[in-house]
Amino acid sequence: MLTPTPFPKSFASDNHAGVHPAVLAAVVEANTGDAPAYGDDVWTRAAEDAFRAEFGAQATVYPMFNGTGANVVGLGLVLRPYDAVLCPDTAHINSNECGAAERLLGTKLIPLPTDNGKITVDDIHGQLSALGNTQRSQPRVVSISQVTECGTCYTADEIAELAEFTHARGLFLHMDGARLANAAAELNCSMRALTTDVGVDLFSFGGTKNGAMGAEALVILNPELDAPALFLRKQGMQLASKMRFVSAQLTALLTGDLWRENAAHANAMAHRLADGVADLPGLSLRYPVQSNAVFPALPEKAITELQQRYLFHVWDANENVVRWVTSFDTTPEHIDTFVSDIRRTVRAAVDG
Amino acid sequence: MLTPTPFPKSFASDNHAGVHPAVLAAVVEANTGDAPAYGDDVWTRAAEDAFRAEFGAQATVYPMFNGTGANVVGLGLVLRPYDAVLCPDTAHINSNECGAAERLLGTKLIPLPTDNGKITVDDIHGQLSALGNTQRSQPRVVSISQVTECGTCYTADEIAELAEFTHARGLFLHMDGARLANAAAELNCSMRALTTDVGVDLFSFGGTKNGAMGAEALVILNPELDAPALFLRKQGMQLASKMRFVSAQLTALLTGDLWRENAAHANAMAHRLADGVADLPGLSLRYPVQSNAVFPALPEKAITELQQRYLFHVWDANENVVRWVTSFDTTPEHIDTFVSDIRRTVRAAVDG
Amino acid sequence: MLTPTPFPKSFASDNHAGVHPAVLAAVVEANTGDAPAYGDDVWTRAAEDAFRAEFGAQATVYPMFNGTGANVVGLGLVLRPYDAVLCPDTAHINSNECGAAERLLGTKLIPLPTDNGKITVDDIHGQLSALGNTQRSQPRVVSISQVTECGTCYTADEIAELAEFTHARGLFLHMDGARLANAAAELNCSMRALTTDVGVDLFSFGGTKNGAMGAEALVILNPELDAPALFLRKQGMQLASKMRFVSAQLTALLTGDLWRENAAHANAMAHRLADGVADLPGLSLRYPVQSNAVFPALPEKAITELQQRYLFHVWDANENVVRWVTSFDTTPEHIDTFVSDIRRTVRAAVDG
Amino acid sequence: MLTPTPFPKSFASDNHAGVHPAVLAAVVEANTGDAPAYGDDVWTRAAEDAFRAEFGAQATVYPMFNGTGANVVGLGLVLRPYDAVLCPDTAHINSNECGAAERLLGTKLIPLPTDNGKITVDDIHGQLSALGNTQRSQPRVVSISQVTECGTCYTADEIAELAEFTHARGLFLHMDGARLANAAAELNCSMRALTTDVGVDLFSFGGTKNGAMGAEALVILNPELDAPALFLRKQGMQLASKMRFVSAQLTALLTGDLWRENAAHANAMAHRLADGVADLPGLSLRYPVQSNAVFPALPEKAITELQQRYLFHVWDANENVVRWVTSFDTTPEHIDTFVSDIRRTVRAAVDG
Repeated sequence: MLTPTPFPKSFASDNHAGVHPAVLAAVVEANTGDAPAYGDDVWTRAAEDAFRAEFGAQATVYPMFNGTGANVVGLGLVLRPYDAVLCPDTAHINSNECGAAERLLGTKLIPLPTDNGKITVDDIHGQLSALGNTQRSQPRVVSISQVTECGTCYTADEIAELAEFTHARGLFLHMDGARLANAAAELNCSMRALTTDVGVDLFSFGGTKNGAMGAEALVILNPELDAPALFLRKQGMQLASKMRFVSAQLTALLTGDLWRENAAHANAMAHRLADGVADLPGLSLRYPVQSNAVFPALPEKAITELQQRYLFHVWDANENVVRWVTSFDTTPEHIDTFVSDIRRTVRAAVDG
Repeated sequence: MLTPTPFPKSFASDNHAGVHPAVLAAVVEANTGDAPAYGDDVWTRAAEDAFRAEFGAQATVYPMFNGTGANVVGLGLVLRPYDAVLCPDTAHINSNECGAAERLLGTKLIPLPTDNGKITVDDIHGQLSALGNTQRSQPRVVSISQVTECGTCYTADEIAELAEFTHARGLFLHMDGARLANAAAELNCSMRALTTDVGVDLFSFGGTKNGAMGAEALVILNPELDAPALFLRKQGMQLASKMRFVSAQLTALLTGDLWRENAAHANAMAHRLADGVADLPGLSLRYPVQSNAVFPALPEKAITELQQRYLFHVWDANENVVRWVTSFDTTPEHIDTFVSDIRRTVRAAVDG
Repeated sequence: MLTPTPFPKSFASDNHAGVHPAVLAAVVEANTGDAPAYGDDVWTRAAEDAFRAEFGAQATVYPMFNGTGANVVGLGLVLRPYDAVLCPDTAHINSNECGAAERLLGTKLIPLPTDNGKITVDDIHGQLSALGNTQRSQPRVVSISQVTECGTCYTADEIAELAEFTHARGLFLHMDGARLANAAAELNCSMRALTTDVGVDLFSFGGTKNGAMGAEALVILNPELDAPALFLRKQGMQLASKMRFVSAQLTALLTGDLWRENAAHANAMAHRLADGVADLPGLSLRYPVQSNAVFPALPEKAITELQQRYLFHVWDANENVVRWVTSFDTTPEHIDTFVSDIRRTVRAAVDG
Repeated sequence: MLTPTPFPKSFASDNHAGVHPAVLAAVVEANTGDAPAYGDDVWTRAAEDAFRAEFGAQATVYPMFNGTGANVVGLGLVLRPYDAVLCPDTAHINSNECGAAERLLGTKLIPLPTDNGKITVDDIHGQLSALGNTQRSQPRVVSISQVTECGTCYTADEIAELAEFTHARGLFLHMDGARLANAAAELNCSMRALTTDVGVDLFSFGGTKNGAMGAEALVILNPELDAPALFLRKQGMQLASKMRFVSAQLTALLTGDLWRENAAHANAMAHRLADGVADLPGLSLRYPVQSNAVFPALPEKAITELQQRYLFHVWDANENVVRWVTSFDTTPEHIDTFVSDIRRTVRAAVDG
């Protein structure tokens, strides 16, 4: 048996966490002899039922391997060959998917600068003069991330306003919901209240960062967009042959609101972390804490020292902003130890 | 807990089988707290070691989600924008990946007709007049499947001859090794003897059909091709965030030759099946049985009746050829019951 | 001034001919001061009128630079991301456009073997089992060449049958009409009788091989397909800024049936050539002569000798078939001299 | 014969001008019987010689139909599948080619904001942290426009600095030289001094806006990049069959420095226009006049009135900036009449 080097609790990413026991149990339980491949199995039917219960009867769901896959396949459903995607410049599809959207979809991404990862109706409005101009890529879909890559959340009203504005101009609204659960937990509402009820056309549902082993899904709420999904998932290399083991993870998260329990806990840990350092001279938060991530600016020397003992990423090297992420299995003890170390280190850096 | 409808042992695909207990155990054991994401973890290091032990020190390995992904990312490493892939017309990349190679790589596939899924030096030779002609896609890589989609195997010598011929003309040799394990088991040799030792430049290693939950890998043997692999895997939507759970499956298969045990058993079951029906009047084998699949032609009426009780696909509707596939967990009892039913049904159809 | 080396009348391609004087005059006459760019000019309006007069009121026309461009932009109008094109394996889009369709459209071409460049309903029928199978590219459009790359013509009835069959199955019918004029001249009918009247959905109209300097057009007859054409032409790098000089060429060809005069003459020269050699022992025609090309098989030694004095291409090196092409400015004297040389050379080869 | 509605001298684009008589004469003279197709002709050899005389012996030249084609084929020579292009957000490839680069090359464009269309070393530096990060598209080439879409010019020193910086980091420097002639005329230097001598790796040479009918070229100065050009031009639908008629235009422009004469005249007319309005209250120039375009801000009411009699585009609707472009055949009388009308109209708007 493999014995990994002891690895400390990471604050680098919610991808560093393992699998929630209930999710792992569901995977193990799905291993009961033969089952049809490619999603024609009872576990996938159960996952579809669970999504419909959560998001409404019109929701169609396509389990996929990872978030990039769910984003690319989903956007592929709305884009014509000459279309563009409007998104925040911080969007994962723009900055962290190695150009997958451009290469695999042939689309232009039009990155919009933001203060905190959230785009507004005005940001979109500024791009619409291209509509009808045959020399320009046509804005076709607005893609927002909920929660954003800056850890902030759109309120339900903000999403509704974006949806109304985009729909009125013939555009669609897409959501990268890699951390949709965290948003719903933070805003104390259902996930449906942030998607179906406010006009989102389709979204990527993230399971992996919320305690799954590797399970995401494309969820389509606008039935007009559904027809080619099976073809695009297959062509997009996101069709699992033994899909039951992906679907079972999704069902586990949606059963008994495990998704909310995991997300709420992770968020609470991020707030505990932020609260523990907010008063520190020399440390300031770049964005408000609205999910499971904290983005503080702190002295470069403190960053260097903390990174010798803790895993986390630098977010903005020019301004010494780092990113601390919590997960479903971060404990109060993890946070308190980390806070204590941060306080000592930042104080020393400020004093020194 | 979910209670699936009882599902009979399937002869439709080795994808219908579940997960081998040792593979599932490895997945469960990998769930030990935090670990770095995206492959920077000890389980992935262990998988790499296991592949090097199997395929030689120069092998680099990139775990992926599925075979289409491994094929597309791998071919992407060798193709320039104006290149073509030479492959049998039965190739999975040509006939079962919904045009992924054309769309995601922008490449032309040149399908070569074959008798039994295996292409020859002559087949390739016939395409080489395009070389240097700027009006034509340039043959760049020959892609063979081992075992083929017809269940047949290339011998080591046959692969060596293809490699020598292609290399002499500046082309590369790619292998879709979704069932490479079955070939090595059938030919009673190492997997290395069918790849590294005979000049294969890169191949897709299939774990899923051989008892994994969902684990494939791109293995690169020609070091010239390695440099862009990390970028192309990420862009190709095949980078698992919690990769340890994929890597652990691969290691489990390579540990103690579990891969061979599973493949040899599946092959033996296919031979038992073929042997059990070979003498039947009205039934004939389309291809020789050289792995875990049997392709018999039988009366249409018998097909219809058998499909009411057994799961299997029609391979060639015009000629009433079907495909029966066995897997690591097919038992002699499964086979014997099936054989008995086939014999009775075919006889009735022939007599009737 | 440039003094070119004397260059003999070529039998290699109708692309080797220059520009018909009336076409050149139209280009010169279009140079009257300023005009709007990108097709918003009176010459382009005139060309559109001329096309509507020829092909019917529903025809929309998009002047383009070359045939590859017209083919790719046209096919792009009908293809969804997971679609395939059914075409003869000899099709220009398959064999002579360096993989443009695969790379620029991301589509799969499914090449169908033929005897003489013409595909039949049966050939198409054999591919339709893929419809609805999400693992396979979906046949979406049948692309035929009129005249074919083998110099043969589809009759109006044959095209009507293909159109009816494809439309009944939800597919479209595309025509590469690089030499549509030659077909209409040969069949002694209008071009409309081979397109609009028999159900062609869209086609590439070839001007260059018929006496233009460089002018092709995409013509759309099925109005459902028209909407994205302006965007795809621009994105497809086929939008001429000073379009009037392209449009004027097209109008010139369509004025006073210059297109027919040029094509009929070229065809007559091909028949004169074929008639002059048909009785030669040792020479046989691979395909019937139905346009401006002749495909004889003749002794290899004769090929070698003739190529020292005449420009023409080898079509099939294995069977010693060559291609002789005539054009609008080939004269009877060119033909008679060539025939005389061929007769002498072939006889010597046969005797020797 | 076609009688166009009288069309006034346009200030909308140098694409609205006709063809310079010497260029048209060269086209007519090239119509001397047969010639080989696809560039294997003496006119194309002559054009290549002329380019080598202008840009140095290492220059290879590929005549193309239009600027989008030359840009896309050129960038295709340097881009790997996971690469990005750094360019000003105003770049033609970013804003006026309907997403051709993204779709046809699959590349990401990273648009950099600028004050005047010119990017700096600092702008590039800010993007280089992506290098080596497999989650991000890799900056591979910097694309500048000379002159810029804002009518401004890079000095030779500025280009040299960009080239040195990019080369030192393994990147390439590409130039969209649609108006390279205007820059050389403005800076009173050779075109070579702005390309070959300062480290440009490859560029698009623009003929059409400088008096040609339709003739652009990709010129490669870095011999490492040359090998795939013939394939990519063909695949990129930019290979003219009767290429002599394109090549002859290019040669005409390069003969006797006609390119400079045309460009210098157009520039002089722009300066005359700017000089004629610079003192007007209510009118201010957005960018310095450094070529054949003037970008004034003026009262919205004046814009509306002037557009009733003159053709020109609005550049920035929010700030009432318009674009006035001159060409090789703009006369002093055209300018003086226009200036007089502008003065009267703007004064009335300001006073009113």
